Amino acid sequence: MIRAYRTNAVGPLLMAQAFLPLLKKAAQNSTEKGLSCSKAAIINISTVMGSIQKTSESFFKPVISYRCSKELRDLASRHPNLVLVKLDVANPSAIADAAKIVEGKLKGAGLNLLINNAGIYAQVSLETVDSEEMIRAYRTNAVGPLLMAQAFLPLLKKAAQNSTEKGLSCSKAAIINISTVMGSIQKTSESFFKPVISYRCSKAALNMLTKCQALTYGEAGILCVALHPGWVKTDMGSQEADLTVDTSVRGLLSVLPVLSEKHSGNLLNWEGKVIPW
Amino acid sequence: MIRAYRTNAVGPLLMAQAFLPLLKKAAQNSTEKGLSCSKAAIINISTVMGSIQKTSESFFKPVISYRCSKELRDLASRHPNLVLVKLDVANPSAIADAAKIVEGKLKGAGLNLLINNAGIYAQVSLETVDSEEMIRAYRTNAVGPLLMAQAFLPLLKKAAQNSTEKGLSCSKAAIINISTVMGSIQKTSESFFKPVISYRCSKAALNMLTKCQALTYGEAGILCVALHPGWVKTDMGSQEADLTVDTSVRGLLSVLPVLSEKHSGNLLNWEGKVIPW
Repeated sequence: MIRAYRTNAVGPLLMAQAFLPLLKKAAQNSTEKGLSCSKAAIINISTVMGSIQKTSESFFKPVISYRCSKELRDLASRHPNLVLVKLDVANPSAIADAAKIVEGKLKGAGLNLLINNAGIYAQVSLETVDSEEMIRAYRTNAVGPLLMAQAFLPLLKKAAQNSTEKGLSCSKAAIINISTVMGSIQKTSESFFKPVISYRCSKAALNMLTKCQALTYGEAGILCVALHPGWVKTDMGSQEADLTVDTSVRGLLSVLPVLSEKHSGNLLNWEGKVIPW
Repeated sequence: MIRAYRTNAVGPLLMAQAFLPLLKKAAQNSTEKGLSCSKAAIINISTVMGSIQKTSESFFKPVISYRCSKELRDLASRHPNLVLVKLDVANPSAIADAAKIVEGKLKGAGLNLLINNAGIYAQVSLETVDSEEMIRAYRTNAVGPLLMAQAFLPLLKKAAQNSTEKGLSCSKAAIINISTVMGSIQKTSESFFKPVISYRCSKAALNMLTKCQALTYGEAGILCVALHPGWVKTDMGSQEADLTVDTSVRGLLSVLPVLSEKHSGNLLNWEGKVIPW
């Protein structure tokens, strides 16, 4: 019961909580011109409702989806440029449906920034984990972002083709996979007090996916980066965590605009520092 | 059809081919006393028949399982100390059954060396791979070795407890996961001409698993290492490959006896050199 609740309810809620300041900023500043995540993001959360915001006057088309928590629904009700789109990244046909809806909202424009934030996390050790939990984590944390990128690729390519910028950037076309230092094999011993084997293995695979996406999609002008938001004081991270939500989100928002081809295919933390694989 | 054939027939066959010299050595030298893989190995191959060899006079109990190719069955028929055990690492109950059979063969002794050699490999790109292929590769290449280690852990612990050796070694108790440089995120760009996304992601996860196994099982006296056998001239590797079967297998056989606690949790190649994650 706890595992199902953690996976299906708590995890997505915390993702939404962590990104709430970002979403609020997006809603409040819908006419801003500068580069920010509030103007061009899709945040995907497993078994979610999403929100789509569109400002056709900007270079990059802002599309934000998030879980249907009460706070987020309230936000959408106050800001009509936020549109909810249902999405479960563990369901390939739901991904295809969401991509069609987003394509319709974009009305012929491209999509500049896809943030794959969907993730599930179960406290389970090497001794007790079973095949089902291993597969469940992999399906959402690694396969989901892969399928999302496949489905949104035509829209990302269109954004890259319509851009006059040289090089790679989030304002041109980018895939951001929200990963974790707990997917870093080299750093495992530093955080090994946390028994999250299914999460670690799936995130190591997500890091590999990000590298392969960077090598594959770079030619089409699409930046691909994995980001570690830090250990954040949310219900998931607990109050023992290192960072406040505000510090993590501000950090990520300051990293996104400076990403370029030199970062593509890497795992960076919320301060923009490279984390070894 | 090709994908199913490659996964279910060609992959396991090639694994068996690659290890055939090792198996022959095991069969021919069943009374040898020194440390060698021929005396203490389980090689697991998806949808396989295995062979169990037991020499009760040695410190470590040699148990070798492999796919039921004609060559291997011929070998077993000539060497009655090789016993075939059916095993599919993608099937948790088959793993439990195999562990019970091996436990019976060991007659109260421990198991010194578990080599997880099972692996599937499909040529599929980031653009064309689907959820099913991603999950299939992960189930065999990452979840399989995890479940194998869980199932054989009591036998490995028994071997470690019964050993008078200090430190960690293959002659005491060890889990060897056969991985690949293609699971190295850092080295991906060097081999990216090969479109094997499901394989790469699953092997990155296997490398993470190996690190977690080393951190978890080290206290019980169990060495855990991932090995890259090289790109070998087999049907899987093709004749364009760098290494002959003989070079790869001789290399692996020379690496196993020198492994110690300083290697545990690392990925090494057939020459014993560390590969970055």
